[in-house]
Amino acid sequence: MMDDRHYMQKALLLAETAAANGEVPVGALVVLPDGREFAGHNAPITLHDPSAHAEMRAMRAACAAVGNYRLNDATLYVTLEPCTMCAGAIVHARIGRVVYGADDPKTGAVTSLYQILADHRLNHQPTVTSGVMADECSALLKNFFRRRRQNRGTVAN
Amino acid sequence: MMDDRHYMQKALLLAETAAANGEVPVGALVVLPDGREFAGHNAPITLHDPSAHAEMRAMRAACAAVGNYRLNDATLYVTLEPCTMCAGAIVHARIGRVVYGADDPKTGAVTSLYQILADHRLNHQPTVTSGVMADECSALLKNFFRRRRQNRGTVAN
Repeated sequence: MMDDRHYMQKALLLAETAAANGEVPVGALVVLPDGREFAGHNAPITLHDPSAHAEMRAMRAACAAVGNYRLNDATLYVTLEPCTMCAGAIVHARIGRVVYGADDPKTGAVTSLYQILADHRLNHQPTVTSGVMADECSALLKNFFRRRRQNRGTVAN
Repeated sequence: MMDDRHYMQKALLLAETAAANGEVPVGALVVLPDGREFAGHNAPITLHDPSAHAEMRAMRAACAAVGNYRLNDATLYVTLEPCTMCAGAIVHARIGRVVYGADDPKTGAVTSLYQILADHRLNHQPTVTSGVMADECSALLKNFFRRRRQNRGTVAN
């Protein structure tokens, strides 16, 4: 959808903000049915918070604004496939639709390692669209890790 | 271990605090290697935050205090088996040891539905001890749901 690219472009800009702070570049945007938007960028190192992934921060901001821990019918845009933590929070928040960019073969919990959002033993299954602007989302991550390896003078992550 | 029961007793008291607030009674305690303790009780409804599970709040409090998103060698006590969200955060925080009380056959991600803390594809595997004061932890939950059903006059959760 045209709209998906529009919102993913914003999530990409948030991912760049994360990178500028030395954080793994992931950005997220929660869009409510009434059009309100809540942004998050990855910040665990900066905030000393292991839960401060981009999508967690966007969801928490949206929940604080609406005064409810559920975000029925909201759409979550995120540049990288959510991990187990974020996938679990997406289920708890009853997010209606998840749109993500690049797959994460190392820790992804929507398609790659686990398929948590499709698990009918849990009490909610959002709609999922993947691969939106995947090349741009992935390039941002690859460039970040390449630069970090160069700065450290090593070949390991 | 004697110590495990000591800390789990504190987690149980925190679970009672959650119940007093109308939240599902789960309590957690992070204990650092230097003996410092950080408490958390389940509060998603009260705080309008889908991520406000007991163990998430205890870990976030500990991380804020030490100024680091990692809690190497810390022990996390929690009355109920962690869900996918909390298990993911435990891995991100590099918690050294997880001690939990009751199994959660509906959403547990350590033993029941998933075994995330034993997944060697992820980059950390804490030691896990389960079943500590399981009867007490489980009774608190059962009583809570029984009272809630009675108050609602229905037989569903």
